[in-house]
Amino acid sequence: MPPSPGPPSPAPPGFAALWESLLPIGQDPGTGGYRRFSWTPADLDCRAWFEAAARHRQLRTEPDRNGNLWAWWDVPGSSAPAVATGSHLDSVPDGGAYDGPLGVVSAFAAIDELRTAGFAPARPIAVAAFTEEEGGRFGVACLGSRLLTGAIDPETARGLRDGDGTALPDAMRAGGQDPGLIGRDEDLIARLGCYVELHIEQGRALTDLGAALGIAEGIWPHGRWRLDFAGQADHAGTAALADRRDPMIPYAATVLAARTAAVERGARATIGKVTAEPGAANAVCSAVRAWLDVRAADGRTLEDTVDQILAAAGQESDANRVVMTSRQESFSPEVEFDAMLADRLAAVLAARGIDAPSLPTGAGHDAGVLAARLPTAMLFVRNPTGISHSPAEHAEDGDCASGVIALAAVLRDLAG
Amino acid sequence: MPPSPGPPSPAPPGFAALWESLLPIGQDPGTGGYRRFSWTPADLDCRAWFEAAARHRQLRTEPDRNGNLWAWWDVPGSSAPAVATGSHLDSVPDGGAYDGPLGVVSAFAAIDELRTAGFAPARPIAVAAFTEEEGGRFGVACLGSRLLTGAIDPETARGLRDGDGTALPDAMRAGGQDPGLIGRDEDLIARLGCYVELHIEQGRALTDLGAALGIAEGIWPHGRWRLDFAGQADHAGTAALADRRDPMIPYAATVLAARTAAVERGARATIGKVTAEPGAANAVCSAVRAWLDVRAADGRTLEDTVDQILAAAGQESDANRVVMTSRQESFSPEVEFDAMLADRLAAVLAARGIDAPSLPTGAGHDAGVLAARLPTAMLFVRNPTGISHSPAEHAEDGDCASGVIALAAVLRDLAG
Repeated sequence: MPPSPGPPSPAPPGFAALWESLLPIGQDPGTGGYRRFSWTPADLDCRAWFEAAARHRQLRTEPDRNGNLWAWWDVPGSSAPAVATGSHLDSVPDGGAYDGPLGVVSAFAAIDELRTAGFAPARPIAVAAFTEEEGGRFGVACLGSRLLTGAIDPETARGLRDGDGTALPDAMRAGGQDPGLIGRDEDLIARLGCYVELHIEQGRALTDLGAALGIAEGIWPHGRWRLDFAGQADHAGTAALADRRDPMIPYAATVLAARTAAVERGARATIGKVTAEPGAANAVCSAVRAWLDVRAADGRTLEDTVDQILAAAGQESDANRVVMTSRQESFSPEVEFDAMLADRLAAVLAARGIDAPSLPTGAGHDAGVLAARLPTAMLFVRNPTGISHSPAEHAEDGDCASGVIALAAVLRDLAG
Repeated sequence: MPPSPGPPSPAPPGFAALWESLLPIGQDPGTGGYRRFSWTPADLDCRAWFEAAARHRQLRTEPDRNGNLWAWWDVPGSSAPAVATGSHLDSVPDGGAYDGPLGVVSAFAAIDELRTAGFAPARPIAVAAFTEEEGGRFGVACLGSRLLTGAIDPETARGLRDGDGTALPDAMRAGGQDPGLIGRDEDLIARLGCYVELHIEQGRALTDLGAALGIAEGIWPHGRWRLDFAGQADHAGTAALADRRDPMIPYAATVLAARTAAVERGARATIGKVTAEPGAANAVCSAVRAWLDVRAADGRTLEDTVDQILAAAGQESDANRVVMTSRQESFSPEVEFDAMLADRLAAVLAARGIDAPSLPTGAGHDAGVLAARLPTAMLFVRNPTGISHSPAEHAEDGDCASGVIALAAVLRDLAG
């Protein structure tokens, strides 16, 4: 009889200890959310945690040229490309505990399972923690994997600044990393045979399907646009409404137009970040800056959704004598994960009695960026509420345990 | 033949020198706007400027218990209550050069005019610069005059904090002012016979009327409400639209509802300050906080306008499973300036050939707060564009000169 995922099992001991030791780092005591932004003290603590976890397992740690962390289970005499797994440790502002860390902790715990079972890999296994996956500090999601694969130019990356004006090179130097070395790393890519990322699901499709685990099918195309509405500051008490050039009005209309366009096209459109300048409670503001995030099932739908939103933003701005400009800040085309690798994962899990349905996702991941250069796959762990990028993000211990067992089986198959 | 205001005359020499010396203080080199927040280094520089201007004119300076500045033209032997004039030196964020400073500079320049003409006052003349008129740092407009007249409780004021969390008492102490002394100051009020504030107009009614100067009729009632929209942070790519509790949606609907309500009732409603938490470009935000400023010709219209806006905010929040709470942060009832004093100003100006029409205003002023305790009046100087609370705020030199001449005539009449 094959092992089965339910009834809920406690997390493996290795998992629980690792998880508990990571949990306090970068947590806001007020909100309970995480603020693990790359190269900040919280991130450096996460990096130290990673190195300690690797050291404890006699894995050889090695930061790459782009600040991503790697822990290697070397196989003396084998020059075969490695089976890589892992995820990221950084967070969005006030993010949850699982998005990213679950994949890294599960990777170490899966190695514990394999070691306990006496498994001897035929090829190296690597655990990765990619830097700045969320773009939470420098605004470019998957920055570490983009640099590694050459999806972003090193000069462009060196020009990135955080909200306080600190440039990426200065932040990296403060973290002990040489920013002069960043850029595409063919040597490292050549050492990787495939990448399997375990991640908490960020919707609740698995909950609806009654499954603890899923396998990623692909990632929706995804873009981010910055919208600048430039009007005219004025006095809130004396400026006649008809004389105003208030940028808040077309901004508000754009928020509603984005929702409408997304509903009409089955897409997702979100404005979660906005600033008003100068931001006085008793003055019409001079400018509103907003960030629009749009994702859809395919590139054409995405483009149509964005066109509809920007057209509405332009019309409402014109009507209020406000100047609206938009700029695409990032774009990630549709990703289809490697079908053969996904089929192999499904077969491995099926052989252990685990039913892991295939799912598309609207979230970007390092596995999506790496897919341009090597076979990649993703395992999702059920998220009962679907809530993500929030302190309320959660997965049950039993499902996390199932994830570790499944990942161990996958690594055993791929590296055996 | 009486002197007449036009053709445009150059500003009086005293005015120009004073104006030029104040101009650089607290100016943002990027925007050209002013950031003169009370008890900050820029404000302390403004205070030093005031003291130097007074000293230069042999006026006795005296900060009051609430941090307002006073420069006294004493009249030995006279115990008659003084004629006070002046305005304020603080600014909104990125404010203009004229709102406040024009009244203080014009007061000193008017005294120069009187001195040059050999005028000997029969009662004291005082020049005031009230602190925190804009509420730009601690959020309570006219804080200095409210404390002086007892319109705000000293304990409440001592609990105010700025955006960085600094408490008013700490800010005052850093500026060399004892916060233990703040509160109603009957001794000072008893020494004041009336207060005439010269101020740049903050609309363009005078431009439309073809007049360089106007006399205030009254101040519209005015209130500020804080609106908190509490939703649920979530992932912008994976959270289904129907599952979201996105506070940005009802916020946007509220912005548009405020404009509609104000248009329908001939009122003014403005949201110029908004924050989104946590403010990630790739996440549904958890909370939006906004400040609503509403003013109307009378209290009933104001109340109806606010009711209509808050009802819309509540409905849209309910529809999005967002919790909306509102709190009145400040309220200033309608002010009618002293009719006898206004008539006397109009007569003085008419005798000099100056036609100064009466105007209502939607802006709050220290003269409005002081009106509860002594006769007050306001002189407005034409603002060609009507733009205020903005670096683009402007008055022509000739109109400023007319203001100084008119103010000197008024002081001569009231203190003669």
